[in-house]
Amino acid sequence: MAIPSADQINGALRGFDRLYGLQLLSCSDSEVRAQVIVREELKQPAGLVHGGVYASIAESVASLATAVAVFDRGEMAMGMSNSTSFLRPITDGIVHAHATRLHRGRTTWVWDVRFSDDDDRTCAVTRMTIAVRPRPDGGPPPARS
Amino acid sequence: MAIPSADQINGALRGFDRLYGLQLLSCSDSEVRAQVIVREELKQPAGLVHGGVYASIAESVASLATAVAVFDRGEMAMGMSNSTSFLRPITDGIVHAHATRLHRGRTTWVWDVRFSDDDDRTCAVTRMTIAVRPRPDGGPPPARS
Amino acid sequence: MAIPSADQINGALRGFDRLYGLQLLSCSDSEVRAQVIVREELKQPAGLVHGGVYASIAESVASLATAVAVFDRGEMAMGMSNSTSFLRPITDGIVHAHATRLHRGRTTWVWDVRFSDDDDRTCAVTRMTIAVRPRPDGGPPPARS
Amino acid sequence: MAIPSADQINGALRGFDRLYGLQLLSCSDSEVRAQVIVREELKQPAGLVHGGVYASIAESVASLATAVAVFDRGEMAMGMSNSTSFLRPITDGIVHAHATRLHRGRTTWVWDVRFSDDDDRTCAVTRMTIAVRPRPDGGPPPARS
Repeated sequence: MAIPSADQINGALRGFDRLYGLQLLSCSDSEVRAQVIVREELKQPAGLVHGGVYASIAESVASLATAVAVFDRGEMAMGMSNSTSFLRPITDGIVHAHATRLHRGRTTWVWDVRFSDDDDRTCAVTRMTIAVRPRPDGGPPPARS
Repeated sequence: MAIPSADQINGALRGFDRLYGLQLLSCSDSEVRAQVIVREELKQPAGLVHGGVYASIAESVASLATAVAVFDRGEMAMGMSNSTSFLRPITDGIVHAHATRLHRGRTTWVWDVRFSDDDDRTCAVTRMTIAVRPRPDGGPPPARS
Repeated sequence: MAIPSADQINGALRGFDRLYGLQLLSCSDSEVRAQVIVREELKQPAGLVHGGVYASIAESVASLATAVAVFDRGEMAMGMSNSTSFLRPITDGIVHAHATRLHRGRTTWVWDVRFSDDDDRTCAVTRMTIAVRPRPDGGPPPARS
Repeated sequence: MAIPSADQINGALRGFDRLYGLQLLSCSDSEVRAQVIVREELKQPAGLVHGGVYASIAESVASLATAVAVFDRGEMAMGMSNSTSFLRPITDGIVHAHATRLHRGRTTWVWDVRFSDDDDRTCAVTRMTIAVRPRPDGGPPPARS
């Protein structure tokens, strides 16, 4: 398949990503930029963006970028672990996410995601491990050296 | 303040917890049970419950239970880190969460959260570290031995 | 191969495990008990057992127990991630480790390790993810359902 | 106190850091470089550098750099959590460590540590959270804005 653009991926987003409002800005096999506009529905009781929102964004951008990259090899991507540290609250504006790939192995990819506020301060960081597995419908895997 | 019941906390839930559908079943300073009913809006593209839903539930139950417990000491609770491992997908039914406190320190509490499906299979686990800090409106902290 | 006893594994320990002093007490495919006797060489500058000692013990007990369990299937075990939280220092006596398996998947096993002091207080906890892979010398893998 | 040089810190290393062979190359409050020379005593049974060695190095460099930075404020540093992902084995040569500070809060500092082999390939990564607390002998803390 041709590599889809960020706009094409956005148009295809369903379910939870649509519920919390994920917007991809750019997406390659080694770097993703995305954002979520803060609204009341994304907050925890004290008025801060809920920690689960950061974890959700990280999960999605790392999974999507990996899934797109391995699709033509008959493989799929699934979140294996998501480890998020919260450094500084965000209360309004935009949650900016920047994911960079640390590792591309045969069976796991590892990504770092940095979250920043509108003043570009680091507010949270996530380390995502993505499992890469054969797709049930993927046909025989390509030969590997 | 009197310790609120799970029902009272549910009635007060706002924002993100209401968006994804958190329901507390019981809540003490050492154990919490909660659930989320699976619906299409909580899924990722392959039809599984989104990893961010598990992370969000863990964040909320650990934070809420800690916040309630330290409120009378003039303190508040904030998620510091959320580390979730995904073991088995859930596609329908209910996401069951069971949180148990591992550690109650002066400045951090640590919780383990186990997620299971309707057949009681472990589907994800989260380790949550919660920071406990003086509340801005909390008055002088109580004396500590 | 016959499942080796904890004593047999201890006799075969080499390298780093011998350097820091790992002693297995019992070892099955779902539970391991081990200990390390505290000595000056295991401490950090403030006189506490070094955090790396806990991480090393967790790495070893989870890897060894998984490796023994999958050996006859032509597979090997390798640490994939090690996430340790430090709750209370240990300064003398024995570091007691108790590992329990949370998950046994085809390609990953997940273990929790609890560390306690001589008064059975929880001092650290580790979540270990172990990758299970075909051994280069393992011959064809057994058929799987 | 004057900020000690990497050589001065190396000369003062005791206990576990000396046992596994930590060598600091440079150390500031935002970046540390260190190395460990691979030897048989640092390996696990399959002949790879033991995962605990990486975790130990990360623990030490992040703790040391934080401790030196906060000493004059009457504070001390202690490892709170150590989360290491293993990406590629090292079997000989030198384990190179490069730590960069992600966050400097009042009560926690967060560091990323990247480990590489002699060909500068990323072999492991650690996220370290360091707790910063008043030192028992630290006198009254300095006023904070």
